[in-house]
Amino acid sequence: MANYSVSVSEVFHALADPTRCAIVSSLGYGAQTVTALAAPFDMALPSFMKHLTVLERSGLIRTSKLGRTRTCELVPETLSRAEKWIAGQRAMWEARSDRMVEFVERLHQQEQPHVTKRRRKD
Amino acid sequence: MANYSVSVSEVFHALADPTRCAIVSSLGYGAQTVTALAAPFDMALPSFMKHLTVLERSGLIRTSKLGRTRTCELVPETLSRAEKWIAGQRAMWEARSDRMVEFVERLHQQEQPHVTKRRRKD
Repeated sequence: MANYSVSVSEVFHALADPTRCAIVSSLGYGAQTVTALAAPFDMALPSFMKHLTVLERSGLIRTSKLGRTRTCELVPETLSRAEKWIAGQRAMWEARSDRMVEFVERLHQQEQPHVTKRRRKD
Repeated sequence: MANYSVSVSEVFHALADPTRCAIVSSLGYGAQTVTALAAPFDMALPSFMKHLTVLERSGLIRTSKLGRTRTCELVPETLSRAEKWIAGQRAMWEARSDRMVEFVERLHQQEQPHVTKRRRKD
């Protein structure tokens, strides 16, 4: 299996939690300090920080510290990579479905004379 | 938090494993029996079946049984839903970035006369 898949599955792991999905959504509006980001969540700060660590390890967010203030921001390239992976799988499935439809239509066209012959026999 | 996010995070949970990502990729080529699908994986069948259960619960695949043969197929609509969620987050971030660029440019234009005045003073 390609390393690419392993890496993408890490991004999906980071998104496999409603809290982390909500953090990503919140950061879509712009960079925020950890305090501001954590405020709407009914959660102890250490638990919240664990979610941030998972997100940062996956590459979905980056954090920076200025004095005592840590700020988080989204890394859209990582979101884009996960999006492309999913789009790729769907495209593969759709291309195969299109080929299937073409195949069945061709088969149907080839079978038409045969069906007519049978009807004549009846 | 919207139920929609909870549901999407379940799809990401299903994709949060390299084996399950590989199963999804393999099903992109078309429906397969469990035996054929499991063949390339160096894994005991019960472990493989657990992965299929996770994928089926998330709605990413559906399975059907004919006699003793179980067949798996991809559900592209679920892939599409996850893809749209990610695209939505990215679009929000990009729209905000565009607004930031516009804001900075406007600010820069407004400051230009001020800078000119200062230069004149110098």
